[in-house]
Amino acid sequence: MEQKRILLTVGYDGTEYSGWQYQDNGPSIQQALEEALREALGTFARVTGASRTDAGVHARGQRAHFDTASSIPPEKFPFVLNRYLPADIRVTAAREVDGNFHARFMAVGKWYTYRIHNAPHESALFHRMTAHVPVRLDDGAMRACGEQMLGTHDFAAFAAAGGQAKTTVRTVDAFSLDRIGDDLVLRVHGDGFLYNMVRIIAGTLIDVGHGKMDVSCIARALASKNRLDLGVTAPARGLELTRVEYAFEEREGERGYPGGLF
Amino acid sequence: MEQKRILLTVGYDGTEYSGWQYQDNGPSIQQALEEALREALGTFARVTGASRTDAGVHARGQRAHFDTASSIPPEKFPFVLNRYLPADIRVTAAREVDGNFHARFMAVGKWYTYRIHNAPHESALFHRMTAHVPVRLDDGAMRACGEQMLGTHDFAAFAAAGGQAKTTVRTVDAFSLDRIGDDLVLRVHGDGFLYNMVRIIAGTLIDVGHGKMDVSCIARALASKNRLDLGVTAPARGLELTRVEYAFEEREGERGYPGGLF
Repeated sequence: MEQKRILLTVGYDGTEYSGWQYQDNGPSIQQALEEALREALGTFARVTGASRTDAGVHARGQRAHFDTASSIPPEKFPFVLNRYLPADIRVTAAREVDGNFHARFMAVGKWYTYRIHNAPHESALFHRMTAHVPVRLDDGAMRACGEQMLGTHDFAAFAAAGGQAKTTVRTVDAFSLDRIGDDLVLRVHGDGFLYNMVRIIAGTLIDVGHGKMDVSCIARALASKNRLDLGVTAPARGLELTRVEYAFEEREGERGYPGGLF
Repeated sequence: MEQKRILLTVGYDGTEYSGWQYQDNGPSIQQALEEALREALGTFARVTGASRTDAGVHARGQRAHFDTASSIPPEKFPFVLNRYLPADIRVTAAREVDGNFHARFMAVGKWYTYRIHNAPHESALFHRMTAHVPVRLDDGAMRACGEQMLGTHDFAAFAAAGGQAKTTVRTVDAFSLDRIGDDLVLRVHGDGFLYNMVRIIAGTLIDVGHGKMDVSCIARALASKNRLDLGVTAPARGLELTRVEYAFEEREGERGYPGGLF
């Protein structure tokens, strides 16, 4: 039977998961998808994700590919798989791709979102997807600092140990930080991100917003390549992998930050 | 010892609760607050809420009062109570009020929000606080219909059985429905709402957006007072009690729709 390669778009609330990848300490998103595929297709298929998100990190637009000889039309996979998936994981789109496509290696751009509830007390309704900072942050200072990362730089200072990247040079071409009432939302786009890079950026900006680190710290860390010039790694629960982009997707709605209430 | 009456502002993710009020079939928000108060104060205090939200309904700004002889300064109650509350219930503000204040009977205005994820598949990350409608809704028709309820009317057609209101005349003075990408957000303000009224409004507008009910149905139901002229009751999980207003709160930030990312 002829094999097809299928590319999925996957959203998840990462709260209850040990991350994208198999871990000994809890269920993973990858495992949940492979179990749903086995139930739907009756055979095992290995699912390869674009990004190995950490425990507790969320996704709106993770991408993942798998091979199958099934005759299910590609666009039906969301309906088929969602029948077997828990409510905190949803497949939202599927398409057939070339047999040599690879979800991770062929990604050309990624959007991440980091959400902070900046109020004296936690948000009860949105605590799963917001970090909490009780002291009022100076978002002007955070913005001035964050803009220093725009461009192509060696982001060696922005990587946690455990990454497997061959080079630490990356291009970040969009950054915004908006205050919406008691919430701060950070959006960032680049051609790729090092291990924990967005959480290190978020944590550094929180330290800048507190006045604990100075506004030029990102420029300094890009020059020094020293992780100690940056702030703490912000909590996983504030982070969402929002979109993964591929070169062959160029139509309207396939690029840019996706619109939505949240 | 002198008794003080304390007014709390409370947020909750209602997903795991049987509603505000004591029920046999599961834990209630009221019960969780009374347990936290007993742990914090060492004595029982009855908590009276502004609105008896149904099972699964959320709140950002529920209000509730209780009496205590405790010497804890009123503004410290959020910190004290949040230590004993689960993460899906947060007290976000507290103040002392007059001894004859009543959280329910003295409310002069309420804001509600109803959120709809209007996309082919559910939102994994926000499924707890959004109703899901897979077919694209005509939000222009929904807006035209919803605006018919503005003003003072007999809303008898908009009440589920089980309400205890003496009169069904209410004033709705703000209504908006916005599409933000794949999400619809309905906001409504009035001097009070009948039992299930906002969910009946949301369900009717969804039926209008589908083309199952015509755009003039709300005007017709206001004249006929017949529940059958309206649509279904929309799911609890889309509804949030956003703010409860009192006459003595007139400062900036105490009235109007509260700002925020969500």
